[in-house]
Amino acid sequence: MSLLVVGSVALDSVETPFGKVDDALGGSAVYISTAASFFTAPIRLVGVVGGDFSKEHIEFLEERDVDLEGLQVVEEGKTFRWGGRYHYDLNARDTLFTHLNAFEQFKPIIPVSYKKTAYVCLGNIDPVLQRQVLEQIQKPRFVIGDTMNYWIQTKPNELRDTMKVMDAIVVNESEARLLTNEPNLIKAAKKIIALGPKVVIVKKGEHGAVLVTEDTIFSAPAYPLENIYDPTGAGDAFAGGFAGWLSKTDDLSNENLKRAVIYGSSLASFCVEKFSVDGLRDLTKLKIQDRYRSFMELSRFDEGR
Amino acid sequence: MSLLVVGSVALDSVETPFGKVDDALGGSAVYISTAASFFTAPIRLVGVVGGDFSKEHIEFLEERDVDLEGLQVVEEGKTFRWGGRYHYDLNARDTLFTHLNAFEQFKPIIPVSYKKTAYVCLGNIDPVLQRQVLEQIQKPRFVIGDTMNYWIQTKPNELRDTMKVMDAIVVNESEARLLTNEPNLIKAAKKIIALGPKVVIVKKGEHGAVLVTEDTIFSAPAYPLENIYDPTGAGDAFAGGFAGWLSKTDDLSNENLKRAVIYGSSLASFCVEKFSVDGLRDLTKLKIQDRYRSFMELSRFDEGR
Repeated sequence: MSLLVVGSVALDSVETPFGKVDDALGGSAVYISTAASFFTAPIRLVGVVGGDFSKEHIEFLEERDVDLEGLQVVEEGKTFRWGGRYHYDLNARDTLFTHLNAFEQFKPIIPVSYKKTAYVCLGNIDPVLQRQVLEQIQKPRFVIGDTMNYWIQTKPNELRDTMKVMDAIVVNESEARLLTNEPNLIKAAKKIIALGPKVVIVKKGEHGAVLVTEDTIFSAPAYPLENIYDPTGAGDAFAGGFAGWLSKTDDLSNENLKRAVIYGSSLASFCVEKFSVDGLRDLTKLKIQDRYRSFMELSRFDEGR
Repeated sequence: MSLLVVGSVALDSVETPFGKVDDALGGSAVYISTAASFFTAPIRLVGVVGGDFSKEHIEFLEERDVDLEGLQVVEEGKTFRWGGRYHYDLNARDTLFTHLNAFEQFKPIIPVSYKKTAYVCLGNIDPVLQRQVLEQIQKPRFVIGDTMNYWIQTKPNELRDTMKVMDAIVVNESEARLLTNEPNLIKAAKKIIALGPKVVIVKKGEHGAVLVTEDTIFSAPAYPLENIYDPTGAGDAFAGGFAGWLSKTDDLSNENLKRAVIYGSSLASFCVEKFSVDGLRDLTKLKIQDRYRSFMELSRFDEGR
């Protein structure tokens, strides 16, 4: 099935204990689209870049079969740039700079050819913009949304309105707690369900992810990576793998949502093994299937009697 | 098979956001023995209490079929007391007081009837004492040890010596990192294996546990409890369930170690549902088996194709 992705398209400058890149391809829409492209087509991207966005990056997305009709190019503007530095343990990072540039005036415009899209993945942008995207699409079958602490704190009401029209939300631990003022993650997830999304996924980084629906709880392990080079984009790669698998299979049963969580986790694990989108560049369906099987191995145990 | 347990026997005063108890039964040897008693017999406890240790607590342990020949009673002394207060999110706690009392002069003396014990679980005490216990036992089949930040920092060499004779070690995340100076948990576990124990279990509280051996990695979920009343003893209940299952089955294969991790996780989950050892008081084998099955449900997913 078709998948529409909206989010940032960015040039990231990232420093980790293992290296450094400048102006590397990044942004939530890029990570989500790329991860999803291993599962489904067409993928329709909505975003904005400046005139400085290189042809090479456009080609990368086109090679992944991502439809760029919805990518606005502000010729006289510059592309959104983010700079960050990760700490030694990779669980914390400092933002060094955020230059919104062309992204500051971004108004999502949905091309006519995108209007009938079954699955929608709303990357982490202003909840008002997320809603504007949905208003331009004919009733989609399933909407997956992301958000962040910044929007939870600065636009709580707008976010609540948008959450009402999300079918699934992907948040990390601190976002789940902040959204609900509830330290217990399971209780927090249930409170989020009461706000709208029927499916809640709490990403826990090196501790895996938890899927909570009205009638199931599923705990997915993290892939035991010994070398994580760059955590940037892991959450978006997760969302992309999750959305891509659902869009491919068009099966919203609990069992298939669980598979989608494992595919999301797989894509996230590949993503962090290299800088920028490089971990997704030479990826294949076969490698993804192998990793899925590794997740099964990792979490399997038999009857204890 | 027989299981010998050494550790503290204590009276705990605990405050959590959900209540408060004073001088409640606690201590690593108590939690370990009680948890293990649902699986195996005989369980042989080695520890010390003062003349103030109530008959009621002795009876509780005897009812769980714990052999108390190795429990020293210092009539003129007082029992080890610990006081702590948990924060709202239960992941952090402040120690309010630690009165070692009779425990300060504790020298483990192993009764003759204990000397041939197949399985040994060394609760979190001074690594020098842990070693003294092992020196008094005929070569045991399997030794499981626990430790804590305090010993890692104050007795690093003694701890390393004791770790050489442990077959398995149970540590939490911060202990694993502190022991090895390695932020990545999988790398840290592998470094611990190089120090002696062939089996490493990293307990991660609400994020479950990871088992690492030379040739396997297993990720166990945490039971999704919505109400945790008192986290005290969870790690020891884990160790007791783990040791108890291994001792019952006497099977040290990777597959059985995984089952032992799930039984340990089950016992820990029951432990935190009530104050002190109350979560283990009215427990039954049937309830444990049900929870084991819930863990299977929680982590199961099928082939993703």
